[in-house]
Amino acid sequence: MRLIYLDNAATSHYKPFNVKYAFYKALKKSSNPGRSGHKLSLQNSLFVWKTREKIAKHFGDIKPENVIFTKNCTEALNIALQGIIKKKSGNVIASTFEHNSILRPLHELEKQGAITLTIITPENKKFITKKDVEKSLKKDTFLVCISSISNVTGNKNDIEEIGELCFKQKILFLVDNAQGVGHIKINMKTSHINFLAFSGHKGFLTPQGIGALCINSSLLPVPIMYGGTGTESESLFQPSLPPESLESGTLATPLIYSLFAGITYIEKHFDKHKKKVKEKTEYLISLLKQIKEITLYTHSTISGVVSFNVKDFDSVQVSDYLNNSYNIAVRGGLHCAPLTHKYFGTLNSGMVRVSLSFKTSKKDLDILVKAIKELVKNKHRF
Amino acid sequence: MRLIYLDNAATSHYKPFNVKYAFYKALKKSSNPGRSGHKLSLQNSLFVWKTREKIAKHFGDIKPENVIFTKNCTEALNIALQGIIKKKSGNVIASTFEHNSILRPLHELEKQGAITLTIITPENKKFITKKDVEKSLKKDTFLVCISSISNVTGNKNDIEEIGELCFKQKILFLVDNAQGVGHIKINMKTSHINFLAFSGHKGFLTPQGIGALCINSSLLPVPIMYGGTGTESESLFQPSLPPESLESGTLATPLIYSLFAGITYIEKHFDKHKKKVKEKTEYLISLLKQIKEITLYTHSTISGVVSFNVKDFDSVQVSDYLNNSYNIAVRGGLHCAPLTHKYFGTLNSGMVRVSLSFKTSKKDLDILVKAIKELVKNKHRF
Repeated sequence: MRLIYLDNAATSHYKPFNVKYAFYKALKKSSNPGRSGHKLSLQNSLFVWKTREKIAKHFGDIKPENVIFTKNCTEALNIALQGIIKKKSGNVIASTFEHNSILRPLHELEKQGAITLTIITPENKKFITKKDVEKSLKKDTFLVCISSISNVTGNKNDIEEIGELCFKQKILFLVDNAQGVGHIKINMKTSHINFLAFSGHKGFLTPQGIGALCINSSLLPVPIMYGGTGTESESLFQPSLPPESLESGTLATPLIYSLFAGITYIEKHFDKHKKKVKEKTEYLISLLKQIKEITLYTHSTISGVVSFNVKDFDSVQVSDYLNNSYNIAVRGGLHCAPLTHKYFGTLNSGMVRVSLSFKTSKKDLDILVKAIKELVKNKHRF
Repeated sequence: MRLIYLDNAATSHYKPFNVKYAFYKALKKSSNPGRSGHKLSLQNSLFVWKTREKIAKHFGDIKPENVIFTKNCTEALNIALQGIIKKKSGNVIASTFEHNSILRPLHELEKQGAITLTIITPENKKFITKKDVEKSLKKDTFLVCISSISNVTGNKNDIEEIGELCFKQKILFLVDNAQGVGHIKINMKTSHINFLAFSGHKGFLTPQGIGALCINSSLLPVPIMYGGTGTESESLFQPSLPPESLESGTLATPLIYSLFAGITYIEKHFDKHKKKVKEKTEYLISLLKQIKEITLYTHSTISGVVSFNVKDFDSVQVSDYLNNSYNIAVRGGLHCAPLTHKYFGTLNSGMVRVSLSFKTSKKDLDILVKAIKELVKNKHRF
């Protein structure tokens, strides 16, 4: 049976030819950039720099040296959160929609007594607005952490307005952009975002193993790892300036080549993809709304995420059924965002999360909906 | 001009077909292991586990769950060093031959007052022995950190005997195996090694971006990063057991497939490669010894590393000349191991490091030696 992959919010299934080819080309000139001075090493060093420039430009023309390569979005968030908090203390605000990649570092730092933590919920029940943040500000709030798009519901938070507020209040603003990549355009400068984390393997369609932290702030995080950087080799201490201060050890150079290709691809096709994802998401939501046994948690067509539950079924029962009977890959259960589930009362049931992409066809969605209807109709059998 | 790549200690240039193919095969079934429950995700989860088993077996049959995937060797060392020191304090011993991936974390921890640090030098002037460690032990020494093979000289330290000593003294023993992979066999159990770090891109011939920490100890490091693990998703805190406790965020799954293939390849060809590297290294050393202007720092034929200086030349002058005139890629300057250079009095000149592989031909080495002879002969021209 043909695979219908609807789990793109976990990782993209489709990888463009150029993304794969860039990796292969990089392997052919395998060497360690920034370590040696021979041709291959210099070529790779230049390309790594070119990719920093590409990312810096993509997110609003920040400084290329402030693009820190990481293994994934989580590492980027840890560098930012732990690194800022080594310099500042007080109150941190995060939202109920955050992923464990933000919640776990912050709860750990709260447990250690390094910060106090305020978790905010949305007045409109759907997404976080400037007002939600504003009314929760404390005198000593120095950092606000909000995801661009929830990985559970696909709803977009008002990051532009929140950035404006933080800027006026002289509060640092960090955005987890794991789910935003490829779906929304973000300008860190005009939106007053100081720290932005993302990975390549979701919206930028690269293999897993590469991500970055983008810094648009004079406050630079203190390193959380130390090691060889190819610079200031005579020193027994970490260099003080980025990118080297925050990048220890050998970089994943072939994946950096892929990331360059992925960003190029996404920038080229952005509007076309956006339109497709919007159309397909609207289509799916309209079909699901016709099934009265379905509870929908998604109120946005922006990222292709559509989350729901089917009456009388646990979400994992639904996802297992779709997998076993139709080879449809969706994600059931909890989505590494416990407070989101708590907020929606789905800590026990979890949610069925469909995450489609610009590659998803209406036909695939028809099969999905047919399968769900069949499940509802024959629920006594399951 | 054909490239003669002699910088394999920085990263391997040759990547076997199976290592590359494994990566592409993995990309074809792109999904996020440990996150969703559908077929592709489960297939990848099983393969990730299979790779943990492979690594665990390779290093002496340790527990597979104690194999922690990282982005590089440096991350593995940071997890171990910082993570152990969150549980223990006192004196740590490291050698003058360590890389900045060990020296910088330890000096940072010393600066923070978390440990006292003893740097030991070898009595035999070449490599660290059990005796060197023994005579430096303090009452409160709880950790000894030694590399298997120096990245600067290629000399092997007596890790088996040092392990025995640490075991008897109930001291934790950590080995930086960045340069040992593919060249020596290590059994963590019989050599009483508690923590071993390595990367894939050197001796295991994978692309850059994957490494691991192997733990053979009941003392488990405290995490240095926190985030989603796909397990205990309802918890706002990190799971307590490895591998998840020490692996936050999406894994570099396609690179894990490559690592499996790389280890398989190396295990199959180990003896043959070892013989080739030994022969070629002996050959190169014998030729270099005939040039009286050369100072050799290498006393081992085990890893293909041969480091030297040429009288009246800075090491970077030599490496630049080899690169520009003969397209020979070696590394000059400092090699991220400042205390090694201090020990040999080469902090100013650096060293020329040739690092050959089983793929290097005698003809390549003849060209290298010819080039050096030419440099010496015509030194007035440079």
